[in-house]
Amino acid sequence: MSYNTFGHLFRVTTWGESHGPAIGCVVDGCPPRIAVTEAEIQFYLDKRRPGTSRFTTQRKEPDKVRILSGVFEDPDTGEQVTTGTPIAMIIDNVDQRTKDYSDIKDKFRPGHADFTYQAKYGIRDYRGGGRPSARETATRVAAGAIARKIIPGVTIRAALIQVGTLRIDRDRWDWAEVDRNPFYCPDAETAKAWASHVDEVRKQGSSLGGVVEVVASGVPAGLGAPVYGKLDEELAHAMMGINAVKGVEIGAGFKAAELTGEENADEIRMSDKGPVFLTNNAGGILGGISSGQDIVVRFAVKPTSSILTPRRTIDRFGNETEISTRGRHDPCVGIRAVPIGEAMMAIVLADHYLRHRGQVGVRPGE
Amino acid sequence: MSYNTFGHLFRVTTWGESHGPAIGCVVDGCPPRIAVTEAEIQFYLDKRRPGTSRFTTQRKEPDKVRILSGVFEDPDTGEQVTTGTPIAMIIDNVDQRTKDYSDIKDKFRPGHADFTYQAKYGIRDYRGGGRPSARETATRVAAGAIARKIIPGVTIRAALIQVGTLRIDRDRWDWAEVDRNPFYCPDAETAKAWASHVDEVRKQGSSLGGVVEVVASGVPAGLGAPVYGKLDEELAHAMMGINAVKGVEIGAGFKAAELTGEENADEIRMSDKGPVFLTNNAGGILGGISSGQDIVVRFAVKPTSSILTPRRTIDRFGNETEISTRGRHDPCVGIRAVPIGEAMMAIVLADHYLRHRGQVGVRPGE
Amino acid sequence: MSYNTFGHLFRVTTWGESHGPAIGCVVDGCPPRIAVTEAEIQFYLDKRRPGTSRFTTQRKEPDKVRILSGVFEDPDTGEQVTTGTPIAMIIDNVDQRTKDYSDIKDKFRPGHADFTYQAKYGIRDYRGGGRPSARETATRVAAGAIARKIIPGVTIRAALIQVGTLRIDRDRWDWAEVDRNPFYCPDAETAKAWASHVDEVRKQGSSLGGVVEVVASGVPAGLGAPVYGKLDEELAHAMMGINAVKGVEIGAGFKAAELTGEENADEIRMSDKGPVFLTNNAGGILGGISSGQDIVVRFAVKPTSSILTPRRTIDRFGNETEISTRGRHDPCVGIRAVPIGEAMMAIVLADHYLRHRGQVGVRPGE
Amino acid sequence: MSYNTFGHLFRVTTWGESHGPAIGCVVDGCPPRIAVTEAEIQFYLDKRRPGTSRFTTQRKEPDKVRILSGVFEDPDTGEQVTTGTPIAMIIDNVDQRTKDYSDIKDKFRPGHADFTYQAKYGIRDYRGGGRPSARETATRVAAGAIARKIIPGVTIRAALIQVGTLRIDRDRWDWAEVDRNPFYCPDAETAKAWASHVDEVRKQGSSLGGVVEVVASGVPAGLGAPVYGKLDEELAHAMMGINAVKGVEIGAGFKAAELTGEENADEIRMSDKGPVFLTNNAGGILGGISSGQDIVVRFAVKPTSSILTPRRTIDRFGNETEISTRGRHDPCVGIRAVPIGEAMMAIVLADHYLRHRGQVGVRPGE
Repeated sequence: MSYNTFGHLFRVTTWGESHGPAIGCVVDGCPPRIAVTEAEIQFYLDKRRPGTSRFTTQRKEPDKVRILSGVFEDPDTGEQVTTGTPIAMIIDNVDQRTKDYSDIKDKFRPGHADFTYQAKYGIRDYRGGGRPSARETATRVAAGAIARKIIPGVTIRAALIQVGTLRIDRDRWDWAEVDRNPFYCPDAETAKAWASHVDEVRKQGSSLGGVVEVVASGVPAGLGAPVYGKLDEELAHAMMGINAVKGVEIGAGFKAAELTGEENADEIRMSDKGPVFLTNNAGGILGGISSGQDIVVRFAVKPTSSILTPRRTIDRFGNETEISTRGRHDPCVGIRAVPIGEAMMAIVLADHYLRHRGQVGVRPGE
Repeated sequence: MSYNTFGHLFRVTTWGESHGPAIGCVVDGCPPRIAVTEAEIQFYLDKRRPGTSRFTTQRKEPDKVRILSGVFEDPDTGEQVTTGTPIAMIIDNVDQRTKDYSDIKDKFRPGHADFTYQAKYGIRDYRGGGRPSARETATRVAAGAIARKIIPGVTIRAALIQVGTLRIDRDRWDWAEVDRNPFYCPDAETAKAWASHVDEVRKQGSSLGGVVEVVASGVPAGLGAPVYGKLDEELAHAMMGINAVKGVEIGAGFKAAELTGEENADEIRMSDKGPVFLTNNAGGILGGISSGQDIVVRFAVKPTSSILTPRRTIDRFGNETEISTRGRHDPCVGIRAVPIGEAMMAIVLADHYLRHRGQVGVRPGE
Repeated sequence: MSYNTFGHLFRVTTWGESHGPAIGCVVDGCPPRIAVTEAEIQFYLDKRRPGTSRFTTQRKEPDKVRILSGVFEDPDTGEQVTTGTPIAMIIDNVDQRTKDYSDIKDKFRPGHADFTYQAKYGIRDYRGGGRPSARETATRVAAGAIARKIIPGVTIRAALIQVGTLRIDRDRWDWAEVDRNPFYCPDAETAKAWASHVDEVRKQGSSLGGVVEVVASGVPAGLGAPVYGKLDEELAHAMMGINAVKGVEIGAGFKAAELTGEENADEIRMSDKGPVFLTNNAGGILGGISSGQDIVVRFAVKPTSSILTPRRTIDRFGNETEISTRGRHDPCVGIRAVPIGEAMMAIVLADHYLRHRGQVGVRPGE
Repeated sequence: MSYNTFGHLFRVTTWGESHGPAIGCVVDGCPPRIAVTEAEIQFYLDKRRPGTSRFTTQRKEPDKVRILSGVFEDPDTGEQVTTGTPIAMIIDNVDQRTKDYSDIKDKFRPGHADFTYQAKYGIRDYRGGGRPSARETATRVAAGAIARKIIPGVTIRAALIQVGTLRIDRDRWDWAEVDRNPFYCPDAETAKAWASHVDEVRKQGSSLGGVVEVVASGVPAGLGAPVYGKLDEELAHAMMGINAVKGVEIGAGFKAAELTGEENADEIRMSDKGPVFLTNNAGGILGGISSGQDIVVRFAVKPTSSILTPRRTIDRFGNETEISTRGRHDPCVGIRAVPIGEAMMAIVLADHYLRHRGQVGVRPGE
């Protein structure tokens, strides 16, 4: 959780700029003898990949991942497995269009990190957004694909539940729908409404925000740590760090502020399979530690800052000017944030699983 | 950000249980030659202290802080200053009522961390909540009092802006009001409405949630770091880690999801004092780095889980039972979360100020 | 391993100055349900305590430890055990003689940290050495006493093997001797020679260096990590950080530079109990990972810098002057470094045990 | 300092195996606007590169480094400079001879990490040593080349001062000699003696150890930190972590144990340029903090474990067998450890420079 590294025992270090030769990451601390292939990782990268529908940016990036270290053929099974040493992955930047950067070279695009990177470092790679470009998130998805393999029995899924002011109907929630529409929307009807709305906004060169919900099922009780390594605060850290995210909530979230103590308390009963909670306002986390219920996190994504309408700004010399974004952009970056949210959930859980195993024993409850 | 330590260069390690002999913290990495006295720290502790009004728990804790190390008399000025070595602070637990814990010793109180601590560690200090008790936050406030002294020219203030479903009227926001009512409410009229509402709820033995807003003004542009050490994600981490917090948002927050790109973009103009942003949907942070605008963070606090109404639960042997909380409790923990939110803001900013100075130079912009 | 914290999963944060009100430490990340009492910790503190023989400083410190958090009565066994939350320990400073510090207040004692603390921080607590005083090591010993309980089956022992130019005869090594003489010397005859030599040096107000050897037996193969978390480099870190230490070696150490490849290779055979190495030039560590052999570390302690003979120096105003140390001091700090070396070995091994368990599984080999 | 990452603010994460497609590193936390070119980095890599004389392994690796991120053209000067974001560097493995690994696939080579990696991870990349191969150190040298640019006015040099039992004559020390012979030997006459001795040993298929001395001049007083972030303990960590190193000492090192307090004390006088120490037994570090004197570190390198003479060992199935190393190897790895020692010194100092700047201000003394 420092500079470009995320995690404590399952550690992900990412590098690369939007228009440099490549981007990549190093996954350190991964347990050994976990079967992993480039194809499996590619599966998740393809979900995040731009240009798969008219609702995402038309940048053409194959996002082909290569593993450069940390895996080896198991001499007994012949399978390719992790060795416990750092797993370096690289994704070449292919579609770095030769273009004229003269417009954005010195101007600060409102809503982008241009101004603050310049203020901090006195220099920035302005091509395509440089380091703070959402392109970096491809490497998170690659790391997340490995993280998913750490905890047995966990399912991590995410969905887009709001685009602009249009919310899904939670009664129509169907996880199967998520893979059937280009919005990762769990509600088929709402997906249709979004399609026409996003199309309209896209044509205007404007953009929309959204809300993503990430759910992890099958997480054992006991993951997390008191006080500053809480599961919920590290999930908040992880999700707030995704590009364009402005809010994160767990379980009942901001709605919890409106409940009474009686309403909010998740009562507990026994079942054949052990304790069950009658509600899940807690979002699966109590005192920073998982309770065995579904972990439920939502995050709000602001509208893409790259829009056609000119906005007033200044340049790095202090001159007032204005700017608009030409060319490719995502009308709603919330869409592509869905697989990224899943990846960050997987990374946080994997890290906490290893940390728990380190402090307490082989697995929660043992 | 690991177990019981928060921060990278300005590091706070806290320890202690609600009903042990004492609680405390160690502040490590503090710059040397910063004047600091116990009285200054006590000022902030007194704001968080329980029992100051009928709207907070009646536990009587003087919360008297003592500094045990890391300060020394400046041989030139005679002032007591930091030496650059760890500052240990201790607060004795005074009001550990001898009481009968037989009711909560084995039962899991819904909404509390009883169940998850037991699941994780196989043991827990059940007296008064043990480690996850909000009592730990006193030590954060002590550390925050020192953190406030790190960055010159910064003002950190917080206010309670919602209790249950009752929101303040932002047009009536007056910072001066915050210290005039027992709710840290910036809107005098709303404070009155809260008083009668909280009284009623308190008499019923029920509880209410709330929303706190923390604002830091005068923060220089350039604090933060790309990708995993972003200022916003570490603020999210910090705030979500406060007891009972279920949601965190920056700037426009969840509302940002409903804005268009045109509405959300904070345009920039030049003024005599340098760049000014015409709006602050970003909450003072772009690409994870401060822009020089006010840093604005809000967090939602769930209603206190300790209520008089019996709730269904189980005990650690797997028996179904029910439990209600007798005795002292906070009808709305959101109130006392206000100074804690300020403290966490101060700690995050101090840490980032030192980290920036380490990587880039003496201060942002140089 | 940053500022005043040591370790990754088993983390020790220490605080306190030689002549402040107290010193202490916080042990974080300790596994839960480990039985621990103040008496057990006191046992090790008593070994390091000053004033136990005429060969150590006559400062009278009872070094009485109190545990302030992180332990609780096991409801099933009634034993006091760790809860998994931070264990705070405190040791009051008792013998802070009221004395006249005017001589050392502004002068830099050669060999001490006076000059460098002043250079770094612009201020220092000059009373009795302040933070860099060896007094801090009492807290390491307290933490080490807990660390010893983490790995089942490990024995950690240390001995003083050289005082000035007088080395032990390794053929007479007898661990039982270590507790029979005031030097922790494993060779009874050499201990006698040291007694008269140290007495003589002590009367002259001079001082002597020494070499300590620390041996950990029963450490399972597999502890350590590749490249920057190697077991040997973290042991080097730990031992070099003990006050006055100027050199650290593992196994054959500097002698290894004089061996041929044939001589140095520790050949391996099978025994009933598994692999056995025919020699131990490696000191139990290969590629940064434990091999199951004894871990053997030696470190050199410089002579105490506090001596009666005046030495030339300067004061903080840049004036040339001279200084000698009056009063209490250790004629050979190497003696009291023995229990500290054991403590640091215990802390490093405990940390690596938990880290291994985190990454790979319940215990080495599983 | 965890797994494959070294450093706190100047952080180096390395990855890659000896015979995988490539090795590389990510340098994170580097200050912005530091001019850096691949050619400058290549200069240091060429010093470490194998096959440059008959005294090092004949593996042919061009060790050509490419920078993939974190640098950009300064819009004002046109120079390529760091941007403050992570600098990824990659070095392709070229000379991965297709060879028959059947001999080492299952056998544990004595002195190598084969046994312990297998014990820890249950799997290992056996080709050419895998992760623990000295090949990893090329990436340290690349990172070190950048680290050298952080502190103005510092010179970092290293020399081989002992091969087997043959020591240099320190009275003949001439830094200019170091670049004139293939041993980095500062004593021309001793270099000749080494040449014939190493030749002889090489022809026998045997190997020799050595001792390297690293000296940093011009380091400002004040770098380091109390207690667990001491400069000397982090140097010990850094040097002990270099492959085959078995001992590290600072200043007088193990000799300090034989000195009296009077001999060991480095007296201080004033000069035109400020304080001067009359001797340097401390090796430039007091209380873990630099004093402004030369930082002097020595480390012992064991003889290469790869030798022609068969050694007894076991295989991973527990069968007794023997093994000898055919083909290329370094007769004295101490030679190529010289630039690696320089690199690690540079990395530690850069990290501490930034950490000091973070805590205390722009530079030591300010």
